[in-house]
Amino acid sequence: MKSAITSTTNAMTSPPVNAASLSLGEQLQSLYHLVRSLTDHIVEPLSVEDCGVQSMDDASPIRWHLAHTTWFFETFILRSQADYQEFNPHFGFLFNSYYHSIGKQYPRSRRGLISRPGLSQVREYRQHVDQEILTRLQREDFAIAAEPLLRVGIHHEQQHQELMLTDLKHMLSCNPMWPVYRDDPFDACNAPASTTPTSDEWIEIAEGVYPIGHDGNGFAFDNESPRHPTYLPNASLSSMLVTNGEYLEFMQAGGYERPEHWLSMGWATTQQQHWDSPLYWLRHNGEWHQFTLAGLVPVELAWPVTHLSYFEADAFARWKGRRLPTEFEWEAACDQVASTATTPLDQEPFADVLFEQDKCIHPTRSPDGLMGTVWQWTSSSYAGYPGYRPAAGAVGEYNGKFMCNQSVLRGGSVATSSTHIRSTYRNFFPPEARWQFSGIRLAK
Amino acid sequence: MKSAITSTTNAMTSPPVNAASLSLGEQLQSLYHLVRSLTDHIVEPLSVEDCGVQSMDDASPIRWHLAHTTWFFETFILRSQADYQEFNPHFGFLFNSYYHSIGKQYPRSRRGLISRPGLSQVREYRQHVDQEILTRLQREDFAIAAEPLLRVGIHHEQQHQELMLTDLKHMLSCNPMWPVYRDDPFDACNAPASTTPTSDEWIEIAEGVYPIGHDGNGFAFDNESPRHPTYLPNASLSSMLVTNGEYLEFMQAGGYERPEHWLSMGWATTQQQHWDSPLYWLRHNGEWHQFTLAGLVPVELAWPVTHLSYFEADAFARWKGRRLPTEFEWEAACDQVASTATTPLDQEPFADVLFEQDKCIHPTRSPDGLMGTVWQWTSSSYAGYPGYRPAAGAVGEYNGKFMCNQSVLRGGSVATSSTHIRSTYRNFFPPEARWQFSGIRLAK
Amino acid sequence: MKSAITSTTNAMTSPPVNAASLSLGEQLQSLYHLVRSLTDHIVEPLSVEDCGVQSMDDASPIRWHLAHTTWFFETFILRSQADYQEFNPHFGFLFNSYYHSIGKQYPRSRRGLISRPGLSQVREYRQHVDQEILTRLQREDFAIAAEPLLRVGIHHEQQHQELMLTDLKHMLSCNPMWPVYRDDPFDACNAPASTTPTSDEWIEIAEGVYPIGHDGNGFAFDNESPRHPTYLPNASLSSMLVTNGEYLEFMQAGGYERPEHWLSMGWATTQQQHWDSPLYWLRHNGEWHQFTLAGLVPVELAWPVTHLSYFEADAFARWKGRRLPTEFEWEAACDQVASTATTPLDQEPFADVLFEQDKCIHPTRSPDGLMGTVWQWTSSSYAGYPGYRPAAGAVGEYNGKFMCNQSVLRGGSVATSSTHIRSTYRNFFPPEARWQFSGIRLAK
Amino acid sequence: MKSAITSTTNAMTSPPVNAASLSLGEQLQSLYHLVRSLTDHIVEPLSVEDCGVQSMDDASPIRWHLAHTTWFFETFILRSQADYQEFNPHFGFLFNSYYHSIGKQYPRSRRGLISRPGLSQVREYRQHVDQEILTRLQREDFAIAAEPLLRVGIHHEQQHQELMLTDLKHMLSCNPMWPVYRDDPFDACNAPASTTPTSDEWIEIAEGVYPIGHDGNGFAFDNESPRHPTYLPNASLSSMLVTNGEYLEFMQAGGYERPEHWLSMGWATTQQQHWDSPLYWLRHNGEWHQFTLAGLVPVELAWPVTHLSYFEADAFARWKGRRLPTEFEWEAACDQVASTATTPLDQEPFADVLFEQDKCIHPTRSPDGLMGTVWQWTSSSYAGYPGYRPAAGAVGEYNGKFMCNQSVLRGGSVATSSTHIRSTYRNFFPPEARWQFSGIRLAK
Repeated sequence: MKSAITSTTNAMTSPPVNAASLSLGEQLQSLYHLVRSLTDHIVEPLSVEDCGVQSMDDASPIRWHLAHTTWFFETFILRSQADYQEFNPHFGFLFNSYYHSIGKQYPRSRRGLISRPGLSQVREYRQHVDQEILTRLQREDFAIAAEPLLRVGIHHEQQHQELMLTDLKHMLSCNPMWPVYRDDPFDACNAPASTTPTSDEWIEIAEGVYPIGHDGNGFAFDNESPRHPTYLPNASLSSMLVTNGEYLEFMQAGGYERPEHWLSMGWATTQQQHWDSPLYWLRHNGEWHQFTLAGLVPVELAWPVTHLSYFEADAFARWKGRRLPTEFEWEAACDQVASTATTPLDQEPFADVLFEQDKCIHPTRSPDGLMGTVWQWTSSSYAGYPGYRPAAGAVGEYNGKFMCNQSVLRGGSVATSSTHIRSTYRNFFPPEARWQFSGIRLAK
Repeated sequence: MKSAITSTTNAMTSPPVNAASLSLGEQLQSLYHLVRSLTDHIVEPLSVEDCGVQSMDDASPIRWHLAHTTWFFETFILRSQADYQEFNPHFGFLFNSYYHSIGKQYPRSRRGLISRPGLSQVREYRQHVDQEILTRLQREDFAIAAEPLLRVGIHHEQQHQELMLTDLKHMLSCNPMWPVYRDDPFDACNAPASTTPTSDEWIEIAEGVYPIGHDGNGFAFDNESPRHPTYLPNASLSSMLVTNGEYLEFMQAGGYERPEHWLSMGWATTQQQHWDSPLYWLRHNGEWHQFTLAGLVPVELAWPVTHLSYFEADAFARWKGRRLPTEFEWEAACDQVASTATTPLDQEPFADVLFEQDKCIHPTRSPDGLMGTVWQWTSSSYAGYPGYRPAAGAVGEYNGKFMCNQSVLRGGSVATSSTHIRSTYRNFFPPEARWQFSGIRLAK
Repeated sequence: MKSAITSTTNAMTSPPVNAASLSLGEQLQSLYHLVRSLTDHIVEPLSVEDCGVQSMDDASPIRWHLAHTTWFFETFILRSQADYQEFNPHFGFLFNSYYHSIGKQYPRSRRGLISRPGLSQVREYRQHVDQEILTRLQREDFAIAAEPLLRVGIHHEQQHQELMLTDLKHMLSCNPMWPVYRDDPFDACNAPASTTPTSDEWIEIAEGVYPIGHDGNGFAFDNESPRHPTYLPNASLSSMLVTNGEYLEFMQAGGYERPEHWLSMGWATTQQQHWDSPLYWLRHNGEWHQFTLAGLVPVELAWPVTHLSYFEADAFARWKGRRLPTEFEWEAACDQVASTATTPLDQEPFADVLFEQDKCIHPTRSPDGLMGTVWQWTSSSYAGYPGYRPAAGAVGEYNGKFMCNQSVLRGGSVATSSTHIRSTYRNFFPPEARWQFSGIRLAK
Repeated sequence: MKSAITSTTNAMTSPPVNAASLSLGEQLQSLYHLVRSLTDHIVEPLSVEDCGVQSMDDASPIRWHLAHTTWFFETFILRSQADYQEFNPHFGFLFNSYYHSIGKQYPRSRRGLISRPGLSQVREYRQHVDQEILTRLQREDFAIAAEPLLRVGIHHEQQHQELMLTDLKHMLSCNPMWPVYRDDPFDACNAPASTTPTSDEWIEIAEGVYPIGHDGNGFAFDNESPRHPTYLPNASLSSMLVTNGEYLEFMQAGGYERPEHWLSMGWATTQQQHWDSPLYWLRHNGEWHQFTLAGLVPVELAWPVTHLSYFEADAFARWKGRRLPTEFEWEAACDQVASTATTPLDQEPFADVLFEQDKCIHPTRSPDGLMGTVWQWTSSSYAGYPGYRPAAGAVGEYNGKFMCNQSVLRGGSVATSSTHIRSTYRNFFPPEARWQFSGIRLAK
């Protein structure tokens, strides 16, 4: 398993060793296989029961993720092939997430009520589609035609890998026995952070017009385009993520009791939801603990704080006399430090890297650059860039229709694959969402 | 499996063949074993996934039922034994349904969010408790002391057997693929009703004072006592259950569109829930079908109508110019016809009988007497009989605290065991409940 | 004003002084006029604004009550008169409460959103209908034909008089300035109870068959019929209402914190609604106060406790080792003591009597018999008596369609007119309702 | 009344005729008096009942607006004056809208439940505060010190004037009698639009860096600052507002039935709310009508469409192959055309102008420039400008804390005063809000 994951990392970021000698079909086969394998690796420690639960409307059962990612390849690539035989005529309805142009969808909030197809039938579905894709990729004309959507499908599956990790964490957290997802890494996780946080430094960006958005080299989602000039003021971004210790100071200063720190909607949310700490924190034997994928552990002060809503990130920043960066400041700063960062992304604590090292999927230190460890809430609302046009066809529903009441997060997290992230990558969630590995990088 | 079920039937209604030679412990061992075996038989066709879903707040996952019925024996019988070693300290919280005197409870509406303990661990829990109970029953002093609560536990498990069938039916109905619970009986089920409904006859009861409630011979729940005199007017009860055909007439006469037939709260419910037919009915290819435990089948006009709320039963009766009987009229009428009924209960279509005959758990004909086939809504609100006192201790929470806003149903259904029902048995559900096998017997 | 009220009392209970010389039309004119006048008296201290608010779905604006009671006379009596000219064609929709056979209704929960017709137009509506009714009553044939529904309309208005008092109390309680409805009676109200509660005595009723229901002499609602024999066990009812002092003991004994005292649904309600005392009680300067129609006053221990739900009445009784009486026990006991009660109803603290004496509408002592002061929750669910048939026509929607999930209260309250109550009178509210003057009489 | 309004217009936009000879205190007195008078003018046709209703959580009763705007002056200006005597100690709680730093607030959704203080007492409160303000303004030192917050208070009252108009429109719309707010203007309103919409023209803005935000000359809210450079692409804005006729085409093309036009959240909202037309549109006698402040009138195709949510504006634009402008494009375009617009703002159909002309508050034609008639949804989320700092003190809660999940609207509407609007003015509402006079100006 381990070597498979390692290879994935390489396959997506750089050409394989002797890429020159590989056809496009062979390259895509390799990539497809490796990403699908990581999904298997994620699911491997889970019981059949673990795979069936939907613990809240925002989350989906693991089994659904397994089927839906498969449905994506079937629907967008195989369905148009004249000789393709659909696996099961009901799946088009059951596993369509939100593509109105494809057809009606089984209601999202009821995904956990479907006990069939069971896990083994879903695995058969995956194998069926895998075999169809891999076989067809032997034909170069198919490979050429399928490449664009196949790459979308692969990145789509990587997004769901992250959701699988955060959804299963939420599901396990509903169990008062605090189940462990992966046991071995517990010690690694709980060990003192390898790097003590150094004194905070500020990354300066100078006023001016910056190009923002993807430059077209390599894969990107449609929401990262068009690349466009943006005027930025002088700004500084912290080189470090906010830690549990710093966040605890906010809590101890009455952060959750004083409305003046909060957006109006944020304060209303804390009151309605009875928030008094980050998600997954609880007092246990008189001490703050946090539930992790390796079980319940005492809160380590030096670790980056995570599982915060935008409201909490914003309130903390205001209390601290700082602010959150805009997504444009973040991207400009990221580009600026990219050259100097000592650690390449595929060695930062991203999901694929952590899996390969048998380490816990949990943030335990700030990355060297801006990317990695926890998603960083920006103050930017999710909107189309000037001239933005959604992709044609059903895949145009992928991003654009969510551009409302969502805040942009940047940088990726310990649950993201290193091959999935880039400086222009725009993640987005509603401001009250907390179940992602979301944290804070301050600006001033 | 089949012989086990047959024996159960006998063991609970009549002394075993050579009961004289069996000790109390041996008798209880046999009874316990047989009821627990029927639970296994119910679960046998289900997948691990089927056992984990909670499809609505009123229902519970099958796995939860398996654990909770076991918890009942552990809590009320084993826990007081000095040498008993609890199976898992978390289970007391996880599988307590509603016994405040035992301790806090995991929230009812979240039972489907718990993926662990999984099915195999729950089976181990059952085996652990079974072995403890069966071994201890070898000691006659234990048998004598445990008998009262053990019998409650056995009847409790029979109640959950019925809930398992109705809960899993509801769960399967959420799946647009209309899964089949037991396939074989489909033909039996769908076959023409063996007895065509004969012309309606009326069972007359004469005005007078009748004894109502259990007479103390054999097992009964506390809510069936004390037996007490009740004054009844002249009344007549139909000898037949209302059929799908008769109910369809009501529907075609605009039954669901005309408020004058309905209780105010019933009308409001039909409007809010968009009811236009019994639960599990749907139009399919232009024809009424109903979802059964054997899949989707066309509505058979001659079968008894089922899966109705009290509101629908009441509205139908008013439309028909009849009324629902009181539970007292029902009981008096039942006692009156008991002598003349040609079919003993253990040959009527109750769950254990149907399982033994490999038939579908679905009502296909009216019983010979008043008991069986579908629970019959009465016009009586569930209340304590004069002088009613709940049992002492935690088991006193079993019945009494639910005496509010519930309507009484009588007679048992195809999902009830024949050894579980009696003429004094009082079932109760809120007037909007439809997922039980509930139907109508008219009175005038 | 005062004399008008006095006369009302007489007119409804006994023939007027020289009734022999009065025609039926004259008698009905007098009765109609007096009841309508009491409505005016109730509204007199209210501002235009007070009359417009609907403070919860269960309550209605005073202005709506004024219009609806008028609509009742217009709809059920005048509309059928060929020469009657409807006052406003919209009012049939706006002021129909729940009569489906009359037509559609403006949604109940939105009654407070209608600012027009304003109070003065509603008063014109009242005058219009009053004049039509009174003029037509000069014709004896009209009087004879109209009498049955006119009496229903008059009693209907008396029911709304009580609702006006309880609805406006609820509305005023939403105002943190604790407004006073009638100021003068405050001292009377707050004065020490004229009679100290004597030692509790028990009214015994002996086992046997009792006639229950109205005997047909004088007015009664359809739900009080048919009179029918009912078997009652030996029972005892307290001669005193439960006091604030006794209820405070329950509170201090942790009554609201211990689930074992409560019905399951009652406990759930206390938790969801955060109940820790009767409605309108609050701690003020460290002491329990209660909001009354005369403003906020300290809780008087000797006064009867009021504004309790059925759940609280039931929990108190269980905690006390007693129970609530059935409505049949209550009625039999009431009939039994009626002969010995020293105070006739028109001198007990009913609404018309209190208004006449310029006293506060608030319970300050137990009545001499069972009737009066606070409605007494019984353990009986509201159901039709054997052989019950709703009245024909739209007025048949008056009572019968509410026979579900309601508990019966008996005896009338300080907000009821003495001419409106009788021993067979059945009031009903859902078990969670607290805004009526509801209290407790224990049984054993 | 009329002259008062006229003068207001002048007083806020330009120095009074002989301003040179007026002291600051005199100028502020005049301004204060005129704005407060317009509030009286708005309320003048309303009944006491009209002033008490809160028809939805987003709206407030008129009486509350009257008191709250007064509370604003009392709290932010008078309270700090040592010799000021508070009018009523409860009002600080009752009429605080959302200022946590001032103290607790009576719950927003319950404002309609407070019947007291009634309208006359609220008028006394207004007079009390008016007299205190006007008297004190005779002292020049007070005038100088009070000026900044007094101007905020005056603009605050103007904002509430607009809300009063939209809130009362919503309230009247709940009444099936379709009440008329101001009767006379009905004909004017219903008359054919004076200018037929000319062929659509496009206002071009060239790519480049534009200064956005208020330049500091005259009053502005804190959210319009700091003025900052913004990079804009080439863009074109329509010179005309979208009309009812154009919007009807969208409806007839299935606009409300086809999810592909909608944001995901917008589609979900249309489904849940059963939207099939703009707010206040209904079919009446087979023809589309719209409820206006002058009653129900047939939809005029040439009038600008209004009472649209952001979702509808966005869906219409997408269907049309256009888009909504950003607020920055809007502001740059507005500045560009300002010089050429032939009609000064105080002659455009703004509220004060319409009142002065006795015309209906309803949009009947596109303005000459970009400002006026209907608020125009932009695609911009409401956020702080770079370097934005909320004002110090409680007034800092005015704007900043709402910067989440709101969309910016620009330009003012027929319910806005001409003296209240400017090109940098940022209005904001949640994307589902429809009760403001909101419409569409397309961009490409």
